[in-house]
Parts: sequence; C-alpha cells; structure tokens
Amino acid sequence: MDWSPDGDAVRIIDQRRLPEVFVERDLCTLDDVCDAIRTLAVRGAPAIGVAGAMGIVVASRAFVDDTPDRFRERVRATAMAIRATRPTAVNLPWAVDRMLGCAASIDDSPHAILEALRREATAIRDEDRTMCDRIATHGLSLIPDGARVLTHCNAGALATAGIGTALAPIYLAVASGRRVEVFVDETRPLLQGSRLTSWELTRAGIPATVIADNMAASLMRAGRIDLCIVGADRIARNGDVANKVGTYGVAVSAHHHGIPMYVAAPTSTFDYATPNGDAIEIEQRSADEVRRGFGVLTAAQDARVHNPAFDVTPAALITAIVSDRGVHRPPYDFAPTAHPFAAAVA
Amino acid sequence: MDWSPDGDAVRIIDQRRLPEVFVERDLCTLDDVCDAIRTLAVRGAPAIGVAGAMGIVVASRAFVDDTPDRFRERVRATAMAIRATRPTAVNLPWAVDRMLGCAASIDDSPHAILEALRREATAIRDEDRTMCDRIATHGLSLIPDGARVLTHCNAGALATAGIGTALAPIYLAVASGRRVEVFVDETRPLLQGSRLTSWELTRAGIPATVIADNMAASLMRAGRIDLCIVGADRIARNGDVANKVGTYGVAVSAHHHGIPMYVAAPTSTFDYATPNGDAIEIEQRSADEVRRGFGVLTAAQDARVHNPAFDVTPAALITAIVSDRGVHRPPYDFAPTAHPFAAAVA
Repeated sequence: MDWSPDGDAVRIIDQRRLPEVFVERDLCTLDDVCDAIRTLAVRGAPAIGVAGAMGIVVASRAFVDDTPDRFRERVRATAMAIRATRPTAVNLPWAVDRMLGCAASIDDSPHAILEALRREATAIRDEDRTMCDRIATHGLSLIPDGARVLTHCNAGALATAGIGTALAPIYLAVASGRRVEVFVDETRPLLQGSRLTSWELTRAGIPATVIADNMAASLMRAGRIDLCIVGADRIARNGDVANKVGTYGVAVSAHHHGIPMYVAAPTSTFDYATPNGDAIEIEQRSADEVRRGFGVLTAAQDARVHNPAFDVTPAALITAIVSDRGVHRPPYDFAPTAHPFAAAVA
Repeated sequence: MDWSPDGDAVRIIDQRRLPEVFVERDLCTLDDVCDAIRTLAVRGAPAIGVAGAMGIVVASRAFVDDTPDRFRERVRATAMAIRATRPTAVNLPWAVDRMLGCAASIDDSPHAILEALRREATAIRDEDRTMCDRIATHGLSLIPDGARVLTHCNAGALATAGIGTALAPIYLAVASGRRVEVFVDETRPLLQGSRLTSWELTRAGIPATVIADNMAASLMRAGRIDLCIVGADRIARNGDVANKVGTYGVAVSAHHHGIPMYVAAPTSTFDYATPNGDAIEIEQRSADEVRRGFGVLTAAQDARVHNPAFDVTPAALITAIVSDRGVHRPPYDFAPTAHPFAAAVA
C-alpha cells in the first residue's frame, strides 16, 4: 500500500481480482475508500487500518479551503464514515482514532493539519511494516525446519503493509534456509486462503497446498500438520481472538489432535478495552456471498443463509500469541502498555 | 430413480444441474452410466448402488443376441467397469456383486438372464426405498420436537432411491408434527449440501439454513446445534465410517461440544470384510474441483491442491449408527447377518 505518485490517492492491490489478475487501484475519494474496504478490495485487519488512515488524508483534501474548525469537523465525519465500514477488526478504529487525535492536536491551518495527517498515516503504515518484521523475528522459533504448517484465510503481505502477520515467521524461516510447507484452507466464502495466500506463497517460492476448509481435520488426524498459525482481527484482554470464520474450527481440531495453535498479530490488533471474546461484534455479511459467491446459484433460492465473517476462538485453545512485542503464553492478560513506537511518535 | 417408460434407460435427476435447473437424464449405454457416476450426475452411496445395478441392465441389452456364455461374460465386463467408477462407497460393489450373482444363477437364454437382472435391479431399488423408511422409523426418536440439526453433504432423497438416510428421520419427524430446523454445511468442493440438501429440504417445507463448512464449529459453541446426523459411504466392522470429506471435522467439533453425532445408513453400506477405517480406500478427485470449481480460477495456478472426496470418522466419535435394522450404539462390532430382505429375495 502506498500513496499514488502525485500523493492524491491511496494505491492498493485490488484483492478481489486475485489470483486471476494483478490490478492496482487508486482510491481518491471517501466513497472509493469505503467501497474498497466494504467489498474487500483491501482487507486484512492491519491493512484496513492503514488504508483507513491513508484514506482519511485523500478524502480530506476536498475540504482544505474550509476554515480550520469546519475542516476538522469534516475530517471527523470522514473518519467516522471510514471507521463504520467494518466492525470487527480493531485496527480500523485504532488507526482512525489515532488520526483524529493527530488532527485535534494541531492548531494551525487546514493545509498544515492535512500535512500532519499525511505524516501520521505514513507513520502508521511504516510502523505496521516494522511490526510485521518483529512478529517474524519473535515467531521464528515456532517454525522449525521441515515444518508442515496449516493456515486459514490470508494473514500475509496482502493483509498488512509489510510481510504479514501469520505468514511473517514463515517468510523469515524460509529466508533463513528452513524448509516449510504450507497447507492453505481455501476459506469460504470469499476464498482469501486459496485466492490470496496460495498466490503470495507460491510467488515467494514456498510450497503451498490448497485444501477445502473441511479437509483440515483429516490432515491433522493423518499426522500431516505440525502446527497451525493464523492472524487476528481483534484480540481481547483475556486472549480470546476474533479472526476469519473457521479459525475456531481449526483451533478445536488442533486441540483434539494435540497440535499447537498460534495466533500472530501486531499491537494494533489488541483491544485492551474488550474483556473477552463475547464482547466482540461479529460482522454478518450478505447471504449471496454463500448463495452465489461466484456468479452461480449454489443454494436453493428459498434456503436461509448464515454468513458471519468472523468467529471467536477462546484463549484456552491458543497455544501462544505472537506479537511485535514477543511470544505471549497463557494465561493471557493483555494490559495497556506504552505503544511500541511511542518514542518515535513523540 | 426409475426405468425410462420404454425400459431401455435409467432415468435420473441430473444432480450437477441443481439447484439452478431440474433436469432428468436417460442413461442408455455403459458410457452414460459410468460417466453419470464419475461426474456425480448421480451420487450418494445408496443411489450409485441402485444406478449401478440398473445400469448393468440397460448396458447389457446390447449383448442379448450373443450366446449365453458370451452374454454372461460381457455382463461381467460391464459390471466390472461400473464397479470401478468410484472406489469408496461400498454400495456400488455390493449392488454389482449381487447382480453378478443373479446372472450366474440363471441357466437360461440371454433374454431370460436379462429379465432376471431387471427384476434384481428393481428389487435393489425397492429395497433401498424400504430401508430408507426403516431408517426413518428407527431414527425418529433421535430427532426431538424443536431439534436444530446439523447435516453435511447430501444424504437425502437425492442420495437414495427413497427418502434418504440422514434426512429420513428428519422427514418423518416433520411428518409427525415435530418442528425441525436444519443447518446445512455447504460441503466444498462440490457443494452437495448447499446445492442438493437445501433444495430438497426447502421443497419439503423444512427450514434450512446454509452455512460454509467452516461455520459449523462456532454455531456449536453458540449452543445453536442440538445434534448432527450424516450419511455414510462405507461402515467398517468396528464402526469407523467413511463419508464425505468434512464429516470427521464435524465429528471432532461435536465431540468437543458434547453434541451427539449420528450416522444413518442402510445395510448395503456396511462392509463386514473391512475391519476398520484404515482399510478403506479414499477417492482422490481432480484438483480443478477446488481450484476452479465455480468456473473461475480461485487458487494460484502454481499451488498444489489436495482433494480427497471422503474422510474417515473413527467409531469413538460416533454416538450412534442408525440402520434399517435399528439404532446401534458403541462398542460396534458389525457381524455379517442375514440380509434384511433375504426372505423376500429367496
């Protein structure tokens, strides 16, 4: 994710088009940004945080000739619209609130506020990249040579501004000369595993085998999975994890087979204000994602559809959580700490 | 499933076209029959047994002017070709072997043998229908009023010559005035749950809610599933069950949540010669079912695909097995018994 060359837009990879075509798109307006997040052109908890922050900047350019008060008011409305696009990943409100804090702290002209916002959004993106690298370093010890890893959804480079969260330790392990094989849950309904994870892993030369979600348990029973690692959309204070729907089933199967279940996420995914997973809002998405996800009618017209985008995995099923701050083991109690980049930001 | 009006073909519902269109097809030749079974135009363990038996009759019409010995030889070759189309469901070799036994027992003209084969195939079909009804009766007590049932794949009318196996007790419960709600795993990659089960349940007026396979575990955790019931493709002597891939994951999740896991199958699905699930051959199907199942490329071109059509659920995870002979509880030890229709057949 980057600014367009003239700085007037957020340039993203349109993830809806992968793996068939690699297309970049420039998001220039508030509608562009909201639509891209809502339709998953840009997705992945860290990535939508970064896109939201950068999106506030490009959408606020239109108001720069307003008075400072009016400008700040319109920035706030823009930010709240972006914040409302998707409810579950905490990275989006985290990034948006940080942008609003920045806007509130500058007592200057709209042009000066806009420039400060641009610097803040760039910092959020660059910090995300650094957090990915730190997750890789901390998680490296979890990925031994020869590891056969199961992952679900996409928690790789496409989901962040860097090399990913769950995939970060895998990339580093391979770069360190370890052999790693990845089994990729296709991740219905929107197939982020088969469309995105298998694409980015094979591009990086890492062997990837796509399976339907319902095949993971029998691979575990056959002794073909050594560990599972996934990303997260929101981690509650007690270590409960909201992540792409299906993560919980992977965790239950891993537990049944005595296979480690790891979660990897940056500081921006931890929600200290949420005591546990029950308090996390789960986004419900359109029935048609299941009923005619690929343009064909695949369920009876009269059948109901239940389509939650996420589920909650209780902390008890999670072997360890890898963040940019280290490898956390149970019992989890994530207290608010100084932001890892506080020194740089101050 | 029925004979065509002139008796020269097996008339099937083309299950590849559901739920978009309801199309019947007449299978007239050996190629028609083998192709229909291989491509899942007709599928479901009991149904492919019946289709195989009836298919031997229509395919053998071409040889009826041969000598009796030559006729029997060509019937045998036909039967073996049909038997080889799919390896996992035992109903197919069970029905084929019964047809070959019938052919061997008639010392008469090819026309007479063919007529005997036609009667035997009709009996196999009619017995399947009766076994479904008996499964319904025996399984009725497992489906209480208000039950919220999870099923996987399609083990309904479309999978049998009658009202189904797993769905049979549900149909009877509803006919008896009980309220039943069914959650239907879509069942990747070929979506037999969303395409077929949701279609036949809603046609019968039974509330059906389609979910992606990876959503079942979180529904169980939310207390929204009272019991699971599925069909089977082969049941080993010790009660291990081969069924559509994903069944094992359902069983693991049900076990984790203390939810009953039932399997329903007719006598023709029990394989007394197979001691346990490890001895069951699991069909591996084309990568493209996963990679471009909806006509679009949904995985990286270079990614491998693992696509077993079935998995094995160990007996220890199965609360009860419902057959036409009753409700079987662990420890299972299925010994060869008199065929339930032995009296009628003799």
